[in-house]
Amino acid sequence: MTIKIGILGYGNIGRGIESALMQNEDMELAAVFTRRDPASVKTVTDVPVVNTEDVAEWKDRIDVMILCGGSATDLPVQTPEYVKMFNVIDSFDTHARIPEHYANVEAAAKESGKLGIISLGWDPGMFSLLRLYSEAILPEGETYTFWGKGISQGHSDAIRRIKGVKNAKQYTIPVDEALDAVRSGSNPQLTTRDKHIRECFVVLEEGADAAAVENEIVTMPNYFAEYNTIVHFIDEEEFLANHSAMPHGGFVLRTGNSGFEKEHGHVIEYSLKLDSNPEFTGSAMVAFARACYRMAKEGQTGCRTAFDIPPAYLSPKSPEELRAGLL
Amino acid sequence: MTIKIGILGYGNIGRGIESALMQNEDMELAAVFTRRDPASVKTVTDVPVVNTEDVAEWKDRIDVMILCGGSATDLPVQTPEYVKMFNVIDSFDTHARIPEHYANVEAAAKESGKLGIISLGWDPGMFSLLRLYSEAILPEGETYTFWGKGISQGHSDAIRRIKGVKNAKQYTIPVDEALDAVRSGSNPQLTTRDKHIRECFVVLEEGADAAAVENEIVTMPNYFAEYNTIVHFIDEEEFLANHSAMPHGGFVLRTGNSGFEKEHGHVIEYSLKLDSNPEFTGSAMVAFARACYRMAKEGQTGCRTAFDIPPAYLSPKSPEELRAGLL
Repeated sequence: MTIKIGILGYGNIGRGIESALMQNEDMELAAVFTRRDPASVKTVTDVPVVNTEDVAEWKDRIDVMILCGGSATDLPVQTPEYVKMFNVIDSFDTHARIPEHYANVEAAAKESGKLGIISLGWDPGMFSLLRLYSEAILPEGETYTFWGKGISQGHSDAIRRIKGVKNAKQYTIPVDEALDAVRSGSNPQLTTRDKHIRECFVVLEEGADAAAVENEIVTMPNYFAEYNTIVHFIDEEEFLANHSAMPHGGFVLRTGNSGFEKEHGHVIEYSLKLDSNPEFTGSAMVAFARACYRMAKEGQTGCRTAFDIPPAYLSPKSPEELRAGLL
Repeated sequence: MTIKIGILGYGNIGRGIESALMQNEDMELAAVFTRRDPASVKTVTDVPVVNTEDVAEWKDRIDVMILCGGSATDLPVQTPEYVKMFNVIDSFDTHARIPEHYANVEAAAKESGKLGIISLGWDPGMFSLLRLYSEAILPEGETYTFWGKGISQGHSDAIRRIKGVKNAKQYTIPVDEALDAVRSGSNPQLTTRDKHIRECFVVLEEGADAAAVENEIVTMPNYFAEYNTIVHFIDEEEFLANHSAMPHGGFVLRTGNSGFEKEHGHVIEYSLKLDSNPEFTGSAMVAFARACYRMAKEGQTGCRTAFDIPPAYLSPKSPEELRAGLL
């Protein structure tokens, strides 16, 4: 009996989940659900592609539905909606709106008797877990999160909206000196500008004014004005050749002290270096989908996050194998 | 209502727990239990020091008893014994004997209706958790654990047993080239010798033969023969001045691939750099003691490991605070 997974939304993360499922023998992809015309969606795995209007017909054929919509407008609607019919997981990543999203999913899931696990992936997700474990162990200290080197979709989009810009990618880069200052245990106070550089690769429309575009980028409030920003203008050929991948990663560090006189310092560091952000996110979601299946089978209902999941539930190995091999 | 903690065994880890409890307002040290004459034990906190023969009198006054004995002979007896009366946690770290220890604690705890959580600290403990999470997310890959730079008590003891040796400390040091090879994602096959160097600081008895002692160290099977070992002879003054601290740490790395053609590589790295091994271990055990208290209050009984504990149970923060602040 394999765990039957549905993918709702077939973009980069959906494909990441599809490929991750091939590495997990206890799970199988049952169907892909799309708002588009199913005939227009070509999956790699040979599975049914179903329009979301017909999703109710799959109510008893999907153990966990993995929602792959965006956090801005899709998931706030989709997760409470689909948890009425399915056990669901999502990667909702608008940190400030998590309490509201949680409340909506909790209410809908309690009513339907299903289980929803939200905000999975690496941040929120693994980075959140590392922040929690590290703070619990070293209550007197500081936690630092750095992102990158990797592409920020939101910042790339912001550049593309500027008049005269044909295409753009923005890399978020952690500042080495800031990372080293944290690792030294000196508990530095770091500003936004201290922590990250923003490096932009921009393809201009013909006849566009490069100086004006650059000025508009580096002075854009919230996105770039608070950072040291580097802008490179390149041609389309170079853009496609060198900036089509989706790398990302980052660091969570906690430094803190112990001892009767707080005389001993400790540094906890977790880092990810990812060739493909959507595939790693998809791989993490698949492991959490296994946990969702198991918790739902136990009769758990309502909303959960990574904080609520016993780690053993993520692994296909038995408790005995885990204790003998990984403990 | 604070959580009442007992410390059984007042050595380096016991003192690490005592100091960690000062950083956790929801917990308090109720008493220290010792096999020695209580009058001979001077604690930093003003609490009762009780001989272990009288421990039964504290049955209803301790929420979680933290067992601080050694893994070789103390804990295999103590954990199954004390879980008959108390909820207990231990730091049992003989990896090969964990299944047997688990079975003994599980049987005793099921009978008494108490909860025992075993093998807590950083390895086993946090390193185990990182191995589990990382393997679950990247099922096709390799996991590597490196220890150090830090003092190995077992190897230091082995040197001290050599005739002519007055005192000794042994540092386990991870080899930078091996770490870099792992980080490159090349999934290297590493021998014992490739991964760690053993560096020894030895004080000789007067008239001892340095060359003979060095030869006996570097050829000692299981402890040193399989490693590149460096031996320094120093005088007692330098030994006390520079080698009295108890630093440790290490690295858990997992590298693996994703994608339909396994075309994308990922590197997960977790590291600890600890000024005081027993204090960090004690700090981790205190966080897990909180989880033990909460799980026991829910009515859970039997034996558990870090793999079975929802991470939120380690933190003094409420689920709402955790979701709003750390997710």
